[in-house]
Amino acid sequence: MAGRIVYLNGDWLAEEKASISIFDRGFVMADSVYEVVAVLDGKLIDFDGHMARLTRSLEALEMASPASPEELLEVHRQLIAKNRLVMGCIYLQISRGNPGDRDFLFPDPPVPPTLVLYTQARPDLLDTNLAKRGLQIISLPDQRWLRRDIKTTQLLWPSMAKMLAKKAGADDAWMVEDGLITEGTSNNVFIVKEGQLITRALSNAVVHGITRAAVLACAGEMGLVIEERGFSLAEALAAEEAFVTSATMLVSPVVRLDGQQIGSGQPGPVARSLRQHYITAARKAAC
Amino acid sequence: MAGRIVYLNGDWLAEEKASISIFDRGFVMADSVYEVVAVLDGKLIDFDGHMARLTRSLEALEMASPASPEELLEVHRQLIAKNRLVMGCIYLQISRGNPGDRDFLFPDPPVPPTLVLYTQARPDLLDTNLAKRGLQIISLPDQRWLRRDIKTTQLLWPSMAKMLAKKAGADDAWMVEDGLITEGTSNNVFIVKEGQLITRALSNAVVHGITRAAVLACAGEMGLVIEERGFSLAEALAAEEAFVTSATMLVSPVVRLDGQQIGSGQPGPVARSLRQHYITAARKAAC
Repeated sequence: MAGRIVYLNGDWLAEEKASISIFDRGFVMADSVYEVVAVLDGKLIDFDGHMARLTRSLEALEMASPASPEELLEVHRQLIAKNRLVMGCIYLQISRGNPGDRDFLFPDPPVPPTLVLYTQARPDLLDTNLAKRGLQIISLPDQRWLRRDIKTTQLLWPSMAKMLAKKAGADDAWMVEDGLITEGTSNNVFIVKEGQLITRALSNAVVHGITRAAVLACAGEMGLVIEERGFSLAEALAAEEAFVTSATMLVSPVVRLDGQQIGSGQPGPVARSLRQHYITAARKAAC
Repeated sequence: MAGRIVYLNGDWLAEEKASISIFDRGFVMADSVYEVVAVLDGKLIDFDGHMARLTRSLEALEMASPASPEELLEVHRQLIAKNRLVMGCIYLQISRGNPGDRDFLFPDPPVPPTLVLYTQARPDLLDTNLAKRGLQIISLPDQRWLRRDIKTTQLLWPSMAKMLAKKAGADDAWMVEDGLITEGTSNNVFIVKEGQLITRALSNAVVHGITRAAVLACAGEMGLVIEERGFSLAEALAAEEAFVTSATMLVSPVVRLDGQQIGSGQPGPVARSLRQHYITAARKAAC
C-alpha cells in the first residue's frame, strides 16, 4: 500500500510521514473510535449511516468531534481523488487527542481530538474468493469489553480471534457469550431458517452494523421475514444458510462452522440474492 | 511535565518529538502492553516483578520482546538519570509495532515491536493527600475484556470509571462482576475482617498486581492471616478497614464506599502499618 496520501489533523501527508504523539490517548489507553466506509467505483457506500454511528460513539465517550459530517465527507472524497481509489475502503479514527502526558482521567480542559483517515485499496471488493467459496468459521468465547455498541479501537480480542481462526485453517471466528453467538470478529452474523432471516437484536453486546441495517432494509424489500434475536451454535449448525455482513465483506456466505457444514456446505441462494440486492441498492445510493 | 527526555525504539528524544506511526498496532487496535514501575529516591521498586509480568503479558499475546530485562533495566536507569527523577514512576509500553497498514491479523512476518518509556515525577509519592485522608470509592460494573491478567492498554473502561468517580466527587471506582469486587481502576483491593486480610485470588479476572504480591509478602512477615477470595460490596462495607495497592499508590487506605464509611471512616491501623512495612521493604530491595 506504499505511496498513499493520508489525512491527519488537517494535513495531507505521505503515509510514512503520518505520526502521532506517544502520549496520544488512542495509543496509551485505546480512548479512540473508528469507522470503515466501503468505496465502490470511487463512491462512498452508506456514508450517512457510518457518520451517524460515529456521532453516537463519540457521544457515548463524551468525546468532541473534530469535524462535521459534511467536512468529513469532503475529506473522504479528497482521499478517494488523491489516491485514485476505485474499490476498497476508507478508515477513519478519532482519539481523544494528546494531553502531553499519561493519565486515566480525560484531559481537563479537553485537547483537540486526533483525526486520521486513510484509504485501503481492495480491487476484488465485489468479487473476493471468500464471497465465492463461502467462509469457514470457528467459534470462540466472546472476551471483549461489554460496550461493543461503541465502536472503539479496543480490538485486541477480535484480532487474537482472527489469528486463532487462521491457525485453525479457518477464515474468521464467531464469538459466543452466554450460549448465544454475538457476532464475528468484524461483522454481524445471520442465519436462514425455514426461509426466514435471523440475526441478533441490537444491544450493548454487538456492534450496530451499518451494513447489517442496510441489508435488513433490502431483505424487507425482498419480502423476507426477519427475526431479530440471539441464536446458538447448535441453531446455526442446523440452519439452511448462514452469512455475515460488514462494510468490506458486504454480504458474504458462511459454509462451515467448527468443521461442520451449514446447509449444503455451499453459498446459499438467500445470501447470494441478498448480496446482489445490497450491492445494487448501495451503488444506487452511493455518494 | 514539559522538558522530559523519553525513550523510543532506541532513541532518546525530547518528549514533544516522540511520535509513532498512525499504523502502529497500539494505536489502531490496542495491541499493546504496559508496566509502571515506581521510583523512590531515584531507585526502582519491585523491578524484577514488573519485568516478569511484562514477559508474561508479551507471551500471552505472542508478542516479541524488543529488549531483555537487563537492557530494560539500563533504559530505566538512564531515564532516571537523564530526567533527574527522584520520586515518581517510569511508564513502559510495548506494542506489536507498525506493519504499515491496518489489518486484524498480526503482521506476518512480524515487524519490530514499538518500545516507549518515560518518567512521571510525583514528588509527593510517599505522602499523597489521598494516602493521608483515605480514598472515597464508588462501585461500578466491571465492563472490561475478560483477560485482565494480560496488562494491555485496553484501558477505556478504567478511564471512564475514573471519570465517573470524579464526577461523583469520589477518588476512584471499584468494579463489580457477578456480585464480587474484581479490583479498582488501576489497583488491587483488600479488606480487613476480624484482623485478617482478604483480597481477591489471582485469575483472568484481575491484574496480577506486583505491589499486591509484595504487600502480601509483607503481611506474611507481619504475621497477618491472608485469605485470597472474592468479596462483595456488602462484605467490604462491613469490613474493619479497606485499602488498595498499586505501584504508584503503594498501600492507600479506603475510607468510604458508595457514600458509606468503612470501619471508623479513617485510615485504619492495618493499612497504615502495611504501608510503612511495604515502603521500608521496597526501599531495601530497590535497584
